[in-house]
Amino acid sequence: MRIIGVDPGLRRAGWGVIEHRGGRLRHVASGACLSGAGDLAARLSRLHADLSAVIAEHRPDAAAIERTFVNADPSGALLLGQARGVALLALAQAGLEVAEYAPNEVKKAIVGVGRAEKGQVAAMVAALLPGARASTHDAWDALAIAIVRAHRSGPASRLAALGASA
Amino acid sequence: MRIIGVDPGLRRAGWGVIEHRGGRLRHVASGACLSGAGDLAARLSRLHADLSAVIAEHRPDAAAIERTFVNADPSGALLLGQARGVALLALAQAGLEVAEYAPNEVKKAIVGVGRAEKGQVAAMVAALLPGARASTHDAWDALAIAIVRAHRSGPASRLAALGASA
Repeated sequence: MRIIGVDPGLRRAGWGVIEHRGGRLRHVASGACLSGAGDLAARLSRLHADLSAVIAEHRPDAAAIERTFVNADPSGALLLGQARGVALLALAQAGLEVAEYAPNEVKKAIVGVGRAEKGQVAAMVAALLPGARASTHDAWDALAIAIVRAHRSGPASRLAALGASA
Repeated sequence: MRIIGVDPGLRRAGWGVIEHRGGRLRHVASGACLSGAGDLAARLSRLHADLSAVIAEHRPDAAAIERTFVNADPSGALLLGQARGVALLALAQAGLEVAEYAPNEVKKAIVGVGRAEKGQVAAMVAALLPGARASTHDAWDALAIAIVRAHRSGPASRLAALGASA
Protein backbone atom coordinates (compact mmCIF):
# COMPACT_ATOMS: atom_id res chain seq x y z
CA MET A 1 0.00 0.00 0.00
CA ARG A 2 1.23 3.44 -0.90
CA ILE A 3 0.44 6.18 1.63
CA ILE A 4 0.67 9.94 1.44
CA GLY A 5 1.03 12.03 4.59
CA VAL A 6 0.34 15.76 4.57
CA ASP A 7 1.34 18.44 7.06
CA PRO A 8 -0.85 21.35 5.97
CA GLY A 9 0.11 25.01 6.21
CA LEU A 10 -0.70 28.19 4.32
CA ARG A 11 2.87 29.22 3.53
CA ARG A 12 3.96 25.66 2.82
CA ALA A 13 2.41 22.20 3.00
CA GLY A 14 4.73 19.28 3.63
CA TRP A 15 4.03 15.95 1.97
CA GLY A 16 5.59 12.51 2.08
CA VAL A 17 4.81 9.31 0.21
CA ILE A 18 5.82 5.90 1.55
CA GLU A 19 5.30 2.31 0.48
CA HIS A 20 4.08 -0.19 3.07
CA ARG A 21 4.46 -3.79 1.99
CA GLY A 22 4.85 -6.97 4.02
CA GLY A 23 5.42 -4.98 7.21
CA ARG A 24 8.26 -3.02 5.60
CA LEU A 25 8.33 0.70 4.96
CA ARG A 26 10.04 2.44 2.06
CA HIS A 27 10.47 6.13 1.29
CA VAL A 28 9.05 6.98 -2.14
CA ALA A 29 9.20 10.78 -2.28
CA SER A 30 8.70 13.83 -0.11
CA GLY A 31 8.78 17.59 -0.33
CA ALA A 32 6.79 20.74 0.32
CA CYS A 33 4.27 22.70 -1.76
CA LEU A 34 4.77 26.46 -1.49
CA SER A 35 1.85 28.85 -1.83
CA GLY A 36 4.12 31.72 -2.89
CA ALA A 37 3.00 35.33 -3.19
CA GLY A 38 -0.32 36.85 -4.21
CA ASP A 39 -3.77 37.10 -2.68
CA LEU A 40 -5.22 34.34 -0.55
CA ALA A 41 -7.32 32.78 -3.33
CA ALA A 42 -4.29 32.55 -5.64
CA ARG A 43 -2.14 31.03 -2.88
CA LEU A 44 -4.79 28.42 -2.01
CA SER A 45 -5.15 27.67 -5.70
CA ARG A 46 -1.39 27.05 -6.02
CA LEU A 47 -1.32 24.79 -2.95
CA HIS A 48 -4.24 22.76 -4.31
CA ALA A 49 -2.74 22.45 -7.79
CA ASP A 50 0.70 21.45 -6.49
CA LEU A 51 -0.64 18.88 -4.05
CA SER A 52 -2.97 17.49 -6.74
CA ALA A 53 0.06 17.12 -9.04
CA VAL A 54 1.98 15.26 -6.31
CA ILE A 55 -0.99 12.89 -5.84
CA ALA A 56 -1.31 12.33 -9.58
CA GLU A 57 2.41 11.55 -9.87
CA HIS A 58 2.75 9.18 -6.91
CA ARG A 59 -0.77 7.63 -6.92
CA PRO A 60 -1.16 6.81 -3.21
CA ASP A 61 -3.83 4.33 -2.05
CA ALA A 62 -4.43 6.00 1.31
CA ALA A 63 -3.86 9.34 2.98
CA ALA A 64 -3.32 10.88 6.39
CA ILE A 65 -3.21 14.49 7.46
CA GLU A 66 -2.21 16.25 10.63
CA ARG A 67 -5.17 17.24 12.78
CA THR A 68 -4.43 20.90 13.27
CA PHE A 69 -3.54 22.01 16.73
CA VAL A 70 -5.94 24.81 17.53
CA ASN A 71 -4.19 27.35 19.69
CA ALA A 72 -5.52 30.51 21.26
CA ASP A 73 -5.31 32.52 18.05
CA PRO A 74 -8.59 32.36 16.05
CA SER A 75 -7.15 34.41 13.16
CA GLY A 76 -4.30 31.95 12.75
CA ALA A 77 -6.75 29.05 12.99
CA LEU A 78 -8.85 30.57 10.23
CA LEU A 79 -5.86 31.03 7.90
CA LEU A 80 -4.55 27.56 8.57
CA GLY A 81 -8.05 26.15 8.19
CA GLN A 82 -8.26 27.53 4.68
CA ALA A 83 -5.01 25.84 3.68
CA ARG A 84 -6.05 22.62 5.38
CA GLY A 85 -9.39 22.73 3.55
CA VAL A 86 -7.83 22.77 0.09
CA ALA A 87 -5.36 20.01 1.10
CA LEU A 88 -8.24 17.81 2.30
CA LEU A 89 -10.09 18.61 -0.91
CA ALA A 90 -7.16 17.54 -3.12
CA LEU A 91 -6.97 14.21 -1.25
CA ALA A 92 -10.75 13.64 -1.37
CA GLN A 93 -10.88 14.51 -5.08
CA ALA A 94 -8.34 11.74 -5.70
CA GLY A 95 -10.76 9.32 -4.04
CA LEU A 96 -8.51 8.87 -0.99
CA GLU A 97 -9.85 8.08 2.42
CA VAL A 98 -8.14 10.52 4.79
CA ALA A 99 -7.12 9.59 8.33
CA GLU A 100 -6.46 12.42 10.77
CA TYR A 101 -3.93 12.33 13.58
CA ALA A 102 -3.19 14.93 16.22
CA PRO A 103 0.42 16.22 16.33
CA ASN A 104 1.10 14.72 19.77
CA GLU A 105 -0.44 11.42 18.60
CA VAL A 106 2.08 11.34 15.73
CA LYS A 107 4.99 12.24 17.99
CA LYS A 108 4.01 9.62 20.52
CA ALA A 109 3.71 6.93 17.84
CA ILE A 110 7.02 7.83 16.18
CA VAL A 111 9.28 8.99 19.00
CA GLY A 112 7.45 7.54 21.97
CA VAL A 113 6.61 10.81 23.66
CA GLY A 114 3.89 13.32 22.73
CA ARG A 115 6.13 16.33 23.34
CA ALA A 116 9.05 15.31 21.14
CA GLU A 117 11.12 17.96 19.35
CA LYS A 118 10.86 18.27 15.56
CA GLY A 119 14.48 17.11 15.27
CA GLN A 120 13.68 13.91 17.18
CA VAL A 121 10.78 13.16 14.82
CA ALA A 122 13.02 13.68 11.78
CA ALA A 123 15.75 11.44 13.22
CA MET A 124 13.27 8.65 13.99
CA VAL A 125 11.63 8.90 10.57
CA ALA A 126 15.08 8.73 8.95
CA ALA A 127 15.76 5.55 10.94
CA LEU A 128 12.43 4.02 9.93
CA LEU A 129 12.83 4.98 6.26
CA PRO A 130 16.44 4.26 5.26
CA GLY A 131 17.49 6.44 2.37
CA ALA A 132 14.85 9.11 2.98
CA ARG A 133 16.17 12.56 2.21
CA ALA A 134 13.40 14.94 3.21
CA SER A 135 14.74 18.45 3.05
CA THR A 136 12.46 20.28 5.45
CA HIS A 137 10.78 19.75 8.80
CA ASP A 138 7.32 19.76 7.28
CA ALA A 139 8.32 17.01 4.84
CA TRP A 140 9.70 14.92 7.74
CA ASP A 141 6.48 15.57 9.65
CA ALA A 142 4.43 14.49 6.63
CA LEU A 143 6.45 11.26 6.38
CA ALA A 144 5.86 10.69 10.11
CA ILE A 145 2.10 11.07 9.56
CA ALA A 146 2.23 8.57 6.67
CA ILE A 147 4.14 6.10 8.88
CA VAL A 148 1.48 6.32 11.59
CA ARG A 149 -1.16 5.58 8.94
CA ALA A 150 0.86 2.55 7.80
CA HIS A 151 1.14 1.18 11.34
CA ARG A 152 -2.54 1.71 12.06
CA SER A 153 -3.58 -0.10 8.89
CA GLY A 154 -1.26 -3.09 9.34
CA PRO A 155 -0.47 -5.47 12.16
CA ALA A 156 -0.36 -3.49 15.39
CA SER A 157 2.91 -5.05 16.48
CA ARG A 158 5.32 -2.35 15.37
CA LEU A 159 3.19 0.49 16.68
CA ALA A 160 2.79 -1.39 19.96
CA ALA A 161 6.56 -1.83 20.08
CA LEU A 162 7.05 1.88 19.50
CA GLY A 163 4.47 2.66 22.17
CA ALA A 164 6.19 0.30 24.61
CA SER A 165 9.44 2.24 24.25
CA ALA A 166 7.80 5.40 25.63
CA MET B 1 -21.00 42.75 -15.32
CA ARG B 2 -22.16 39.58 -13.62
CA ILE B 3 -21.13 39.17 -9.98
CA ILE B 4 -21.27 36.23 -7.61
CA GLY B 5 -21.34 36.77 -3.85
CA VAL B 6 -20.56 33.94 -1.45
CA ASP B 7 -21.31 33.62 2.25
CA PRO B 8 -19.12 30.64 3.21
CA GLY B 9 -19.97 28.10 5.89
CA LEU B 10 -19.22 24.43 6.50
CA ARG B 11 -22.81 23.24 6.86
CA ARG B 12 -24.04 25.48 4.06
CA ALA B 13 -22.57 28.15 1.79
CA GLY B 14 -24.92 30.84 0.51
CA TRP B 15 -24.43 32.18 -3.00
CA GLY B 16 -26.06 34.89 -5.08
CA VAL B 17 -25.50 36.03 -8.65
CA ILE B 18 -26.50 39.51 -9.83
CA GLU B 19 -26.17 41.48 -13.05
CA HIS B 20 -24.83 45.02 -12.84
CA ARG B 21 -25.39 47.02 -16.01
CA GLY B 22 -25.71 50.75 -16.56
CA GLY B 23 -25.99 51.39 -12.84
CA ARG B 24 -28.90 48.94 -12.54
CA LEU B 25 -28.90 45.73 -10.56
CA ARG B 26 -30.76 42.56 -11.44
CA HIS B 27 -31.14 39.30 -9.53
CA VAL B 28 -29.95 36.34 -11.62
CA ALA B 29 -30.03 33.41 -9.21
CA SER B 30 -29.29 32.54 -5.62
CA GLY B 31 -29.28 29.59 -3.26
CA ALA B 32 -27.18 27.59 -0.86
CA CYS B 33 -24.78 24.68 -1.30
CA LEU B 34 -25.13 22.05 1.43
CA SER B 35 -22.19 19.94 2.55
CA GLY B 36 -24.46 17.15 3.82
CA ALA B 37 -23.27 14.22 5.89
CA GLY B 38 -20.00 12.29 5.89
CA ASP B 39 -16.45 13.01 6.95
CA LEU B 40 -14.89 16.44 6.63
CA ALA B 41 -13.06 15.72 3.37
CA ALA B 42 -16.26 14.46 1.71
CA ARG B 43 -18.23 17.48 2.92
CA LEU B 44 -15.59 19.94 1.65
CA SER B 45 -15.53 18.05 -1.64
CA ARG B 46 -19.32 18.41 -2.01
CA LEU B 47 -19.23 22.14 -1.21
CA HIS B 48 -16.47 22.68 -3.76
CA ALA B 49 -18.24 20.64 -6.46
CA ASP B 50 -21.59 22.37 -5.91
CA LEU B 51 -20.14 25.87 -5.89
CA SER B 52 -18.06 25.06 -8.99
CA ALA B 53 -21.26 23.92 -10.73
CA VAL B 54 -23.01 27.17 -9.79
CA ILE B 55 -20.08 29.17 -11.21
CA ALA B 56 -20.06 27.09 -14.41
CA GLU B 57 -23.80 27.61 -14.86
CA HIS B 58 -23.97 31.35 -14.20
CA ARG B 59 -20.54 32.41 -15.49
CA PRO B 60 -19.87 35.45 -13.28
CA ASP B 61 -17.19 38.01 -14.26
CA ALA B 62 -16.30 38.96 -10.70
CA ALA B 63 -16.66 37.58 -7.19
CA ALA B 64 -16.91 38.71 -3.60
CA ILE B 65 -16.83 36.71 -0.38
CA GLU B 66 -17.56 37.53 3.21
CA ARG B 67 -14.42 38.11 5.26
CA THR B 68 -15.02 35.71 8.09
CA PHE B 69 -15.64 37.20 11.48
CA VAL B 70 -13.12 35.56 13.77
CA ASN B 71 -14.64 35.14 17.19
CA ALA B 72 -13.10 33.76 20.36
CA ASP B 73 -13.50 30.12 19.29
CA PRO B 74 -10.38 28.84 17.46
CA SER B 75 -11.97 25.41 16.77
CA GLY B 76 -14.91 27.07 15.03
CA ALA B 77 -12.53 29.35 13.12
CA LEU B 78 -10.59 26.30 11.90
CA LEU B 79 -13.73 24.50 10.69
CA LEU B 80 -15.09 27.59 8.99
CA GLY B 81 -11.66 28.30 7.52
CA GLN B 82 -11.66 24.93 5.79
CA ALA B 83 -15.03 25.64 4.17
CA ARG B 84 -13.94 29.14 3.23
CA GLY B 85 -10.75 27.76 1.71
CA VAL B 86 -12.57 25.48 -0.74
CA ALA B 87 -15.02 28.28 -1.64
CA LEU B 88 -12.12 30.65 -2.40
CA LEU B 89 -10.49 27.87 -4.40
CA ALA B 90 -13.61 27.31 -6.54
CA LEU B 91 -13.73 31.03 -7.34
CA ALA B 92 -10.00 31.27 -8.09
CA GLN B 93 -10.11 28.17 -10.29
CA ALA B 94 -12.76 29.90 -12.41
CA GLY B 95 -10.30 32.76 -12.94
CA LEU B 96 -12.32 35.16 -10.81
CA GLU B 97 -10.75 37.98 -8.87
CA VAL B 98 -12.21 37.77 -5.37
CA ALA B 99 -13.02 40.84 -3.28
CA GLU B 100 -13.40 40.36 0.46
CA TYR B 101 -15.73 42.38 2.68
CA ALA B 102 -16.20 42.19 6.43
CA PRO B 103 -19.76 41.40 7.63
CA ASN B 104 -20.21 44.83 9.23
CA GLU B 105 -18.85 46.47 6.06
CA VAL B 106 -21.58 44.71 4.06
CA LYS B 107 -24.29 45.61 6.55
CA LYS B 108 -23.18 49.24 6.63
CA ALA B 109 -23.16 49.45 2.83
CA ILE B 110 -26.54 47.77 2.42
CA VAL B 111 -28.57 48.85 5.45
CA GLY B 112 -26.56 51.87 6.56
CA VAL B 113 -25.51 50.50 9.94
CA GLY B 114 -22.82 47.94 10.72
CA ARG B 115 -24.91 46.14 13.32
CA ALA B 116 -28.03 45.55 11.24
CA GLU B 117 -30.15 42.43 11.80
CA LYS B 118 -30.17 39.69 9.17
CA GLY B 119 -33.83 40.48 8.45
CA GLN B 120 -32.97 44.11 7.67
CA VAL B 121 -30.27 43.00 5.22
CA ALA B 122 -32.72 40.66 3.47
CA ALA B 123 -35.38 43.39 3.24
CA MET B 124 -32.94 45.92 1.79
CA VAL B 125 -31.53 43.40 -0.71
CA ALA B 126 -35.11 42.57 -1.78
CA ALA B 127 -35.72 46.30 -2.35
CA LEU B 128 -32.49 46.67 -4.36
CA LEU B 129 -33.15 43.52 -6.43
CA PRO B 130 -36.84 43.53 -7.38
CA GLY B 131 -38.05 40.00 -8.01
CA ALA B 132 -35.31 38.32 -6.00
CA ARG B 133 -36.60 35.27 -4.19
CA ALA B 134 -33.71 34.07 -2.08
CA SER B 135 -34.96 31.36 0.22
CA THR B 136 -32.45 31.51 3.05
CA HIS B 137 -30.56 34.06 5.10
CA ASP B 138 -27.23 32.95 3.73
CA ALA B 139 -28.47 33.42 0.16
CA TRP B 140 -29.66 36.95 1.03
CA ASP B 141 -26.30 37.62 2.66
CA ALA B 142 -24.52 36.37 -0.45
CA LEU B 143 -26.62 38.70 -2.64
CA ALA B 144 -25.77 41.57 -0.28
CA ILE B 145 -22.07 40.81 -0.70
CA ALA B 146 -22.48 40.79 -4.50
CA ILE B 147 -24.27 44.16 -4.35
CA VAL B 148 -21.41 45.71 -2.38
CA ARG B 149 -19.01 44.43 -5.05
CA ALA B 150 -21.18 46.01 -7.75
CA HIS B 151 -21.24 49.36 -6.01
CA ARG B 152 -17.50 49.34 -5.37
CA SER B 153 -16.76 48.57 -9.01
CA GLY B 154 -19.10 51.17 -10.49
CA PRO B 155 -19.68 54.89 -9.92
CA ALA B 156 -19.48 55.55 -6.21
CA SER B 157 -22.73 57.54 -6.18
CA ARG B 158 -25.12 54.84 -5.04
CA LEU B 159 -22.83 53.51 -2.36
CA ALA B 160 -22.23 57.04 -1.17
CA ALA B 161 -25.98 57.60 -1.09
CA LEU B 162 -26.42 54.45 0.97
CA GLY B 163 -23.65 55.55 3.29
CA ALA B 164 -25.23 58.98 3.67
CA SER B 165 -28.45 57.39 4.91
CA ALA B 166 -26.66 55.89 7.91
